[in-house]
Amino acid sequence: MSEKIVRINMSNLEVTEEKADEKYKLLGGRALTSTVIKEEVPADCNPLRKNNKIIIAPGLLTGTSAPASGRLSIGGKSPLTGTIKEANAGGICSQKLARLGIKALILEGQPKEDKIYTIKVTKDSIDLEEKYNFKNLGVYQLMDDVKETYGDKVGMLAIGPAGEMLMQTAGITNNDMDNEPSRYAARGGLGAVMGSKGVKAIIIDDTDAPKVEVKDEKTFKQARKKLQEAIKNHPVTSGALPSYGTAGTVDPINESGGLPTENFKFGQFEGASNVSGAKMAEIVEQRGGKGKMGHACHPGCTIRCSNIYPDKDGNVLCSPLEYETDWALGPNLKIDDLDIIAKLNRICNDVGIDTIETGCTIGVLMEAGVLSFGDGEGAIKALEEVGKGTPLGRIIGMGAVGAGNAYGITRVPSVKGQGMPAYDPRAMKGIGVTYATGAMGADHTFGYTIAPEIFKCGGDLDPLSTEGKVEASRDTQKLSAFIDSVGLCLFVTFATSDDKNGEEGIYEMINAMYGSDLDTEKAMEYGRDVLKLEREFNKEAGFTPVHDRLPEFMYDEELPPHNEVYNIPGDDLDKVHQ
Amino acid sequence: MSEKIVRINMSNLEVTEEKADEKYKLLGGRALTSTVIKEEVPADCNPLRKNNKIIIAPGLLTGTSAPASGRLSIGGKSPLTGTIKEANAGGICSQKLARLGIKALILEGQPKEDKIYTIKVTKDSIDLEEKYNFKNLGVYQLMDDVKETYGDKVGMLAIGPAGEMLMQTAGITNNDMDNEPSRYAARGGLGAVMGSKGVKAIIIDDTDAPKVEVKDEKTFKQARKKLQEAIKNHPVTSGALPSYGTAGTVDPINESGGLPTENFKFGQFEGASNVSGAKMAEIVEQRGGKGKMGHACHPGCTIRCSNIYPDKDGNVLCSPLEYETDWALGPNLKIDDLDIIAKLNRICNDVGIDTIETGCTIGVLMEAGVLSFGDGEGAIKALEEVGKGTPLGRIIGMGAVGAGNAYGITRVPSVKGQGMPAYDPRAMKGIGVTYATGAMGADHTFGYTIAPEIFKCGGDLDPLSTEGKVEASRDTQKLSAFIDSVGLCLFVTFATSDDKNGEEGIYEMINAMYGSDLDTEKAMEYGRDVLKLEREFNKEAGFTPVHDRLPEFMYDEELPPHNEVYNIPGDDLDKVHQ
Repeated sequence: MSEKIVRINMSNLEVTEEKADEKYKLLGGRALTSTVIKEEVPADCNPLRKNNKIIIAPGLLTGTSAPASGRLSIGGKSPLTGTIKEANAGGICSQKLARLGIKALILEGQPKEDKIYTIKVTKDSIDLEEKYNFKNLGVYQLMDDVKETYGDKVGMLAIGPAGEMLMQTAGITNNDMDNEPSRYAARGGLGAVMGSKGVKAIIIDDTDAPKVEVKDEKTFKQARKKLQEAIKNHPVTSGALPSYGTAGTVDPINESGGLPTENFKFGQFEGASNVSGAKMAEIVEQRGGKGKMGHACHPGCTIRCSNIYPDKDGNVLCSPLEYETDWALGPNLKIDDLDIIAKLNRICNDVGIDTIETGCTIGVLMEAGVLSFGDGEGAIKALEEVGKGTPLGRIIGMGAVGAGNAYGITRVPSVKGQGMPAYDPRAMKGIGVTYATGAMGADHTFGYTIAPEIFKCGGDLDPLSTEGKVEASRDTQKLSAFIDSVGLCLFVTFATSDDKNGEEGIYEMINAMYGSDLDTEKAMEYGRDVLKLEREFNKEAGFTPVHDRLPEFMYDEELPPHNEVYNIPGDDLDKVHQ
Repeated sequence: MSEKIVRINMSNLEVTEEKADEKYKLLGGRALTSTVIKEEVPADCNPLRKNNKIIIAPGLLTGTSAPASGRLSIGGKSPLTGTIKEANAGGICSQKLARLGIKALILEGQPKEDKIYTIKVTKDSIDLEEKYNFKNLGVYQLMDDVKETYGDKVGMLAIGPAGEMLMQTAGITNNDMDNEPSRYAARGGLGAVMGSKGVKAIIIDDTDAPKVEVKDEKTFKQARKKLQEAIKNHPVTSGALPSYGTAGTVDPINESGGLPTENFKFGQFEGASNVSGAKMAEIVEQRGGKGKMGHACHPGCTIRCSNIYPDKDGNVLCSPLEYETDWALGPNLKIDDLDIIAKLNRICNDVGIDTIETGCTIGVLMEAGVLSFGDGEGAIKALEEVGKGTPLGRIIGMGAVGAGNAYGITRVPSVKGQGMPAYDPRAMKGIGVTYATGAMGADHTFGYTIAPEIFKCGGDLDPLSTEGKVEASRDTQKLSAFIDSVGLCLFVTFATSDDKNGEEGIYEMINAMYGSDLDTEKAMEYGRDVLKLEREFNKEAGFTPVHDRLPEFMYDEELPPHNEVYNIPGDDLDKVHQ
């Protein structure tokens, strides 16, 4: 198990290593990033100045053979929202860090001069290199150059030009097994924080690193099997997700009347079937070549919900193309062409900005008349401005709230400054509770009530009813906080929420590794504690229950086809965290 | 005395008049705008949607012969700061409203369609007219068209294209006695709120209106004389201000080391003498023509600190050119040419944006390298983008925080989203207390500690010392809240702070008019109550003491020549309102 905390002070370029304090032992992933932020980052600091930190942490199970356990948590104070932030991603870096025994890698301070560093992490040393040839590179070119410089077996955590330009929507990416550099910890602008530390890339080379140690190998193996069985037996994790990818979500959400269309004006999109998971699978099948469904985002993922979207010649156009992006740059903009969506996705990846936020932003700009709904070529041109840093590019780089402020648009789908994901809360009341009360702005993964509301996993809730939604959001928020800390993909909970045995497998693996005594109750307490400290940070940063609300237009503008407004009262929203 | 509350509901175009409730009797100007906002505007509303209101209110003494009593208060929830807001201005509209018996004119609701109205207010009626020929006009052309349509004796309250485009820095202007349409209630973006109500202009025609009634004329006259004597006898109000205008402030602030230069990097500007009040007076003298110092911003002002800045041929280039603007578009940008500053000022006026905010914004853009410090022609070109609504124009229209977000600049001189005026708080600690703890963002008029700190009026405080600054800010905040409610110009307090007799004149005039029993103590309680309800609104809008702080860079970056950081601790700032 990983025990090292590595600190890289960018003010004086000193690297220090310490053994993690005993109290951090059972903290991994998000629990660890949020704890370090709460303890070390002044809540009222400017996110892009020296007092903020970037904390990079593998999960508790990362690096082991636990299925789907290779997620990476990256935390800091968000320049987009001003709140505490954890963004997480697949890719290969998390497991490499775990194998190197690194529990957390912390970037702190800020260079006084305008320098840009690449940090190389190996078993034996951590070095800061001034690689000016990396400056301003898009992440695809950067990946090529990194492979040439460091070989094709390294992990690369990096930012694109957007992060260097300190854009509030910049993410931090890392590469997958194919060295596609598009596994983004995308949300909340942490790429700008990394840019503000003068760090373009972190190269992680785990050559000769030992495998991650597990105390009780035998129990671990048995427990692992329980989780694996659950994943294998559940129709979502073994059928829908590998077959259609996350884009398989388009159809059910469209049918439910909650697929945000034309900047959240409608809940259904007539072109939905052109951007669905089935359509994507069909194109992948037809075009062949590198195209693939059932692709894994990190080694050891047995769900394989990812994909490689090919162009007409079978070359990689975008890998992966996920539901949220598909929606953000598709139905939300009235675009129903997967090729255009994939191109938009690739531009976002290359320059290094969050696709959900960018989709919301372009939606706002379309609402403002800067370009027209449905204008895919116009959207491509607009996104190309981002990397050039033109005024329009800068506006896009600010995100939806910034674009709304620039153009006087008040229909901005966001909470605490972060754009909404692909579920209109007026048609799915539970996810609205999560959007409103989540510590990190509108974020579906913060408490995915869609599971019981739409997919009927872990419960069966009428999406249009307000009944039970506060509780559902509270429960899923705790669950997410726990799962994000373990390093597991949130999608394992589709399986475990309907399979107690599989759920126990998770606790038993952790217990076998750490000598702990987790069970359902303690896991939920674990999640609750994470949520609590995140909210405490936000309170110190100036957030109040007033900020735990959806945008005004959702309370007074009906969403077709159900013609519903958002109707869970503020007093009830406040009960989530009471 | 004015008793009518006029409401114009822009949702259904209904106009209603009611007699003001008895509890509103002694509320005028800011006390009235803030009370109505607190009582009627949901604190968490979106400032540019239907639930916000614009409240326009003359002061308690406005319309009488009280010297310098013609200020107009305009209030609403600010789209720039999200706080409660009152902006006030001279000009001729306040007295006309008072003569029409209007205590407050309230714009509420929002048209469903994209329409733009002109409201005509006369003794007999209030009419809404759809004047599409006014759409998108700059305020100078608008003024000409208004004169042609309504005659040259009317008051015009209006917005420029920036307000129509809902820019967060848009102000509301009104005309002066020369029909110069440049008396702006500029700060906080209330022009965008007026734009969001679909109102381009309010024409105020007080033909045949009765004069404002005063209960006890004799006592009023005696009291009036006391105030007038104080103004006449004080060297600031009778000497410096009429001779050099507010720009006379350049020299002493520069000498003190607190004239923010190059986006608050330095406290002294080598070109200061080129933009000083003395220089302005010299130019006015040399060029002759329409140029004038000692000009009054509204009828009955006996201080006459205003001016008309002429071009080389003696025509009006900008009327007036005030200290804050002179600084914002001059030293703050390293521009030392009054002709260029006047041109920039005129562009701001015409398009309708706040000059202080715009100066801060251009400073941030210069910091970002979008243009260079000192580049006056570049600044002119950049400002011309605003009216065109280009992306760069939109960025400028967002204000300093928006521009900082767009370009990743963290040296943004602002509090609660509002750019700082012309006094660097690191060199004048008292004004920093006001900037930080004021309910409306960084605002010098909210509690002008510069009076005792620099001008030695109403006290003598060492500007660099932290001693007594919390108290000084608290006292001046109460005083401002009271004076803004009376309709007096804040500058009368230069005189009255050193002349008890003059101060009493103010209370005695009010008492003679309203049958009240105000004295010093009660006036301070009056001010305190206004501050209190403004802070209550902000609290309900989600503001906490965390927001009562200066920007981070001022705590860690020393300001030459004194090399001071801001050093009044947060705990002390919090005492201002305890």
